[in-house]
Amino acid sequence: MNGVSGLIEYDAASAEVRAVYDDIMATRKVDRVNNFWKVLANHPPTLQQVWAEVKAVMTPGALDPLTKEMIYVAVSATNGCEYCTHSHTAGARAKGMTEEMLGELLAVTALANKTNRLANGYRVPVDEMFRNT
Amino acid sequence: MNGVSGLIEYDAASAEVRAVYDDIMATRKVDRVNNFWKVLANHPPTLQQVWAEVKAVMTPGALDPLTKEMIYVAVSATNGCEYCTHSHTAGARAKGMTEEMLGELLAVTALANKTNRLANGYRVPVDEMFRNT
Amino acid sequence: MNGVSGLIEYDAASAEVRAVYDDIMATRKVDRVNNFWKVLANHPPTLQQVWAEVKAVMTPGALDPLTKEMIYVAVSATNGCEYCTHSHTAGARAKGMTEEMLGELLAVTALANKTNRLANGYRVPVDEMFRNT
Amino acid sequence: MNGVSGLIEYDAASAEVRAVYDDIMATRKVDRVNNFWKVLANHPPTLQQVWAEVKAVMTPGALDPLTKEMIYVAVSATNGCEYCTHSHTAGARAKGMTEEMLGELLAVTALANKTNRLANGYRVPVDEMFRNT
Amino acid sequence: MNGVSGLIEYDAASAEVRAVYDDIMATRKVDRVNNFWKVLANHPPTLQQVWAEVKAVMTPGALDPLTKEMIYVAVSATNGCEYCTHSHTAGARAKGMTEEMLGELLAVTALANKTNRLANGYRVPVDEMFRNT
Amino acid sequence: MNGVSGLIEYDAASAEVRAVYDDIMATRKVDRVNNFWKVLANHPPTLQQVWAEVKAVMTPGALDPLTKEMIYVAVSATNGCEYCTHSHTAGARAKGMTEEMLGELLAVTALANKTNRLANGYRVPVDEMFRNT
Repeated sequence: MNGVSGLIEYDAASAEVRAVYDDIMATRKVDRVNNFWKVLANHPPTLQQVWAEVKAVMTPGALDPLTKEMIYVAVSATNGCEYCTHSHTAGARAKGMTEEMLGELLAVTALANKTNRLANGYRVPVDEMFRNT
Repeated sequence: MNGVSGLIEYDAASAEVRAVYDDIMATRKVDRVNNFWKVLANHPPTLQQVWAEVKAVMTPGALDPLTKEMIYVAVSATNGCEYCTHSHTAGARAKGMTEEMLGELLAVTALANKTNRLANGYRVPVDEMFRNT
Repeated sequence: MNGVSGLIEYDAASAEVRAVYDDIMATRKVDRVNNFWKVLANHPPTLQQVWAEVKAVMTPGALDPLTKEMIYVAVSATNGCEYCTHSHTAGARAKGMTEEMLGELLAVTALANKTNRLANGYRVPVDEMFRNT
Repeated sequence: MNGVSGLIEYDAASAEVRAVYDDIMATRKVDRVNNFWKVLANHPPTLQQVWAEVKAVMTPGALDPLTKEMIYVAVSATNGCEYCTHSHTAGARAKGMTEEMLGELLAVTALANKTNRLANGYRVPVDEMFRNT
Repeated sequence: MNGVSGLIEYDAASAEVRAVYDDIMATRKVDRVNNFWKVLANHPPTLQQVWAEVKAVMTPGALDPLTKEMIYVAVSATNGCEYCTHSHTAGARAKGMTEEMLGELLAVTALANKTNRLANGYRVPVDEMFRNT
Repeated sequence: MNGVSGLIEYDAASAEVRAVYDDIMATRKVDRVNNFWKVLANHPPTLQQVWAEVKAVMTPGALDPLTKEMIYVAVSATNGCEYCTHSHTAGARAKGMTEEMLGELLAVTALANKTNRLANGYRVPVDEMFRNT
């Protein structure tokens, strides 16, 4: 199941790529990086930019990391992205998501996808009260 | 800005439709129903089924109602559904979502939509460790 | 509500564009063409190709025209295309679709969009029996 | 090819899950349930709700079951859902869909996905006559 | 990994299907056709129509073939189509796309998918100056 | 046509927001910023991050700015994003895109959306030769 571009392993990586790998491992307290980063390493500017963004966006803020991870799963399931669904569901579980929470998360995701199409199919006019938020 | 089917107002509604409208207003403690329900009333089985599902799924459970509403917004923004984005953002704000929380919610949604396409474009192979969850 | 490219009216159209407009009006037994064609006329090869394809694909075959029109609505609602949802719902109604049929059509469309995400979110493995069709 | 959550087989299922499995098998006159239901069983409320909805929506009504199944395929192909495309194409074939009917179904689905983007890319303004349906 | 319909090999193909296969091989100067065409051969009108369209649209015009192929990859990655992402990335590479060009192509695709959702989530009103193009 | 969050004009903006607005105007040599940025200003970290990314990604590199802008349009039309379709089509025209180039760009976008669904609907197995790129 080869991808479009090869995986760049640590040993074969340039100094700038290794620096990102090192930061990922240090930040996440793990001893390896997952395939997503090994593929992005084929284009170092993307590797650096995406990691910096993930690090900034997924950090605790007005929303906690688990809520953010669950939002990530909802979007990935909506888009049908196999890789992201697997990796972020694993990430959410590592942050404490139970099977019941996953069940509710996917039930909301499924319901939203359903009512999105009812609203689109019937072309429901937006209520004035929603526009003045 | 007419929709595909007309809005069925309370006064013109059948008894079965009024029963749903009454339950929506009683459950939400409001004195009117929004356009989404007035349009679904053109097909009473859909009106009844969707309301029952919304009521069951969006209730407090393993996830709190605000988290559920924010997941709804993330999906609706991903799908580009104008109606649902307006109505559920209003719903999330009514449940306490601040502008900063919305900012983070959309930042995660945007990032997920971005990395979903990097994973899809490079066809990144799923790591074995993610499959054994 | 200007579009990206202007509408090319019959009087201002070239001979090759008029030939397509004439065929659309003759085939559909109407005395005007709708905006979709007037915009495609900005790129005559697209106008000719799309009209030829619509004419060939939407004609009676193993599936009847109303069924085809309803499939068109299901796809357009799924993609959230405002123009196509309006035009093909009108087309389906002109071919006999009742409000109840529209209700069922959108109920199936909504359900499919929902279960698509449950299957994607849980990454349900495909049953062997489905692969050997 | 492990999914996100395990398959819950009949023997390991709770009484409430078995009741749904029994109803699926009795309704469809089959002696096993497919993986979709075995995965949903990880969240019994979803299993019960989805099965009840599928049973109600896919039943003969103003539209016949084969037409409904084909609409399901059109949506699933549009969304790129591998599981649902396989299972509902198998379902449509079991209800009488021939290879030629599938060919026309996918030709309409493909055409709709194409013209949806032409309408979106050119931002074609909706004709007034379509709004007054 | 069986598909929904079987592959129709040259030896088993009808005369009309062989004529398309022959034209594909002659046009592309290759000695075999890829699976996409072998599957479309299950519905000859689709095979003929799609090949004619691909031939006409992907030919050099106001845009060069490599630019067209890269646009194809951007759309396929956005939709998450595994087959098309693989085949058109291979096609773009055959036309001269380097790893760095692919990196930039996917970086733009990813950014567009991200800002599309920010615009949709915030429902940004279109500037008047953009409407008067 | 109010959006979800208000527009933050220059005079009402904080120093950090003004700094971004100033850089946008200086970089693009224009004397105002468009609504997208005025809305993102409701969440300054997103405003800063997105502008920095747009600046870095859309700059001349292995691909020229016009090609990048056209890829942006293809993705935005595929996703049905009204705002981005208008703004990036205007951007591409400002960089030299003619009506004929737009016609070909949208013809490729439309074709890709079509064949994506044929590949998905038939679940075409990926050719081995495409995997070994």
